[in-house]
Amino acid sequence: MKNSLKSIRETKPLVHHITNWVTIYDCANMTRAFGALPVMAHAREEAADMTGIASALVLNIGTLTSDLIDAMIISAKAANEKNIPVVLDAVGVGATGFRDDMAAKILDSVQVDIIKGNYSEVARLAGEDARTRGVEATSIDADPKKIAKEYADLRSCVVVMTGKEDIISDGKRVFMVKNGHESMGSIVGTGCMAASVIGIFAAVNPDYCDAAKDALCYFGIAGELAAGKSGGPGTFKMHFYDEVSRLSDEEVQAKLNFKEY
Amino acid sequence: MKNSLKSIRETKPLVHHITNWVTIYDCANMTRAFGALPVMAHAREEAADMTGIASALVLNIGTLTSDLIDAMIISAKAANEKNIPVVLDAVGVGATGFRDDMAAKILDSVQVDIIKGNYSEVARLAGEDARTRGVEATSIDADPKKIAKEYADLRSCVVVMTGKEDIISDGKRVFMVKNGHESMGSIVGTGCMAASVIGIFAAVNPDYCDAAKDALCYFGIAGELAAGKSGGPGTFKMHFYDEVSRLSDEEVQAKLNFKEY
Amino acid sequence: MKNSLKSIRETKPLVHHITNWVTIYDCANMTRAFGALPVMAHAREEAADMTGIASALVLNIGTLTSDLIDAMIISAKAANEKNIPVVLDAVGVGATGFRDDMAAKILDSVQVDIIKGNYSEVARLAGEDARTRGVEATSIDADPKKIAKEYADLRSCVVVMTGKEDIISDGKRVFMVKNGHESMGSIVGTGCMAASVIGIFAAVNPDYCDAAKDALCYFGIAGELAAGKSGGPGTFKMHFYDEVSRLSDEEVQAKLNFKEY
Repeated sequence: MKNSLKSIRETKPLVHHITNWVTIYDCANMTRAFGALPVMAHAREEAADMTGIASALVLNIGTLTSDLIDAMIISAKAANEKNIPVVLDAVGVGATGFRDDMAAKILDSVQVDIIKGNYSEVARLAGEDARTRGVEATSIDADPKKIAKEYADLRSCVVVMTGKEDIISDGKRVFMVKNGHESMGSIVGTGCMAASVIGIFAAVNPDYCDAAKDALCYFGIAGELAAGKSGGPGTFKMHFYDEVSRLSDEEVQAKLNFKEY
Repeated sequence: MKNSLKSIRETKPLVHHITNWVTIYDCANMTRAFGALPVMAHAREEAADMTGIASALVLNIGTLTSDLIDAMIISAKAANEKNIPVVLDAVGVGATGFRDDMAAKILDSVQVDIIKGNYSEVARLAGEDARTRGVEATSIDADPKKIAKEYADLRSCVVVMTGKEDIISDGKRVFMVKNGHESMGSIVGTGCMAASVIGIFAAVNPDYCDAAKDALCYFGIAGELAAGKSGGPGTFKMHFYDEVSRLSDEEVQAKLNFKEY
Repeated sequence: MKNSLKSIRETKPLVHHITNWVTIYDCANMTRAFGALPVMAHAREEAADMTGIASALVLNIGTLTSDLIDAMIISAKAANEKNIPVVLDAVGVGATGFRDDMAAKILDSVQVDIIKGNYSEVARLAGEDARTRGVEATSIDADPKKIAKEYADLRSCVVVMTGKEDIISDGKRVFMVKNGHESMGSIVGTGCMAASVIGIFAAVNPDYCDAAKDALCYFGIAGELAAGKSGGPGTFKMHFYDEVSRLSDEEVQAKLNFKEY
């Protein structure tokens, strides 16, 4: 956590996204606001080359097609070879069979280092009988901490379950991040942006579990600060970007709200 | 009109969009600001499944391709079977032959419940000699009320013509909505967002003519409130979202400005 | 420069874009804020027809695919026949071989009237050993004024190199525009929007070198005005749109900051 932002702003990691057409704009702007550099490139012909010059790869299946999934796998293979972190945001898994299948295809074809989704998306991936309402979580029966830990252990990766409280586990450690504000749920794209932020932090911290936890703390704290100045989703979004760009490692220290189990 | 927003916020209808890449972000955010849940999914493999869990389907041909049109037809067939409302925003019909042909293909393949466009788009669909300048309406010779009523009757659906004054007809009733503000025309995406809002209201009101009229009143009133606080298109957009999220059924009652012919 | 905005606002030129999925929303909104009309249409079946009713064509390879490149070439041929300006924003050239190849394919297939990119993108096009970091410029060895002038001469077109200072040349004249503010680099899409603005100004001024210079002055001045009111990238973006919509030819005259070499 020490000097995470400082490190991002000094090295300006390039974060390659293959993402959805709804929030691509927010993912790019949020990446920039944190001080990193976004690039979006999904053509099969260049996907691997673009990953080759990047420091992290963020995959998001929000508006997936078969072609996009192919490009994601090509890029992830390049990332695996280069040993840079691969984040998968499993948007909408549990809503349609196609999403379940395509997420499984990615996970079976490449090493994903950080699997991220809301409670029902990750529960579904982990084999629970969970349904997602479009891209919206539904309540799950099982304990998310247990799901995250066991699924992370099974997949040998970091698992992130986002919600009112975010759960992060690498199969051994389990963190719960309580930073954040309900206003973050009033806009579209918060989950997608969170995946981008996790990618940024993982680009500068080889302990991906710590990186994901830090990312969600910083992101949540910016959300808290923005919410205090906002009168609705329009003003919130605007202040959210401003607050992210103004965050400092020092300020964040005083506002951290997470615990380890 | 009674308790429309209350009903939306309580049931949070899922609105499946297959839409364009310019305003997809605004359509999603506006849907969320009204209290409904947006989902965008255009892969042929999942289009029908996603519609199957939704409460309304909004199709928008703003950046159409043949593949997207196929997905729209697949989804609309699923919507027809499930008896949920299908809204078609005929963006740019009258600008190119391809748009005319693709809109006709949709309309000939499935039951569209609410056909929506600006004056020249709908006039063109209805067989008038109208041209659209890109996605911008040009003036039309015929009376829009007459066009809307006759075309709605012909198609057995609701027809919505948006402009300075919005015309809505189901072939019998004709409404003119005067709510709205010229600032709504200063930003891109107002028409597309209006189609989303119509979808939301139709999800909770089986009288689609009433639903479309209500949607445009609420949407226009939020625009009026936002315009009063804005200094240009940037501030307007931001306040527009805030005002939508703050609307109440009670407040709207006092500001309604429509008439029935 | 005289009455540029007046002319735009009176004639409302239609600017056809085939662009990327990250900033398509900003390009459309910025075009509208300047008083012109954006239209985005990338289907091969209608690309030429849409260009046929437009007053300028803006191509942007930010999220290129082979299909999009084909549509760009189809549209540019229609623009060449109709003698309307074609702007190419060479986003990411120098980052992957695919981008280099596709930009070359466009340039070899049609007449591009204004080639625009950041320093390393244009340097790469001009045959320098330059690399682009995703879509971010890296420093180049050669003098950008020399590159722009020689490359414009070679290609018989206008070349625009954007950066802290923008260089514009038609192979004879060389302008340096110093208007602008570092806040413009804090958001994603500034470069893409600049290409749209160049397209707008070229639509109303047949001297494309002058048009590009004017476009970047006006755009930069709006950025300066917005920066003075902003507390970060969120507020900056909002004010940027407001300031553009409020610009007047008279106000701009007093703030111009460019020189001719």
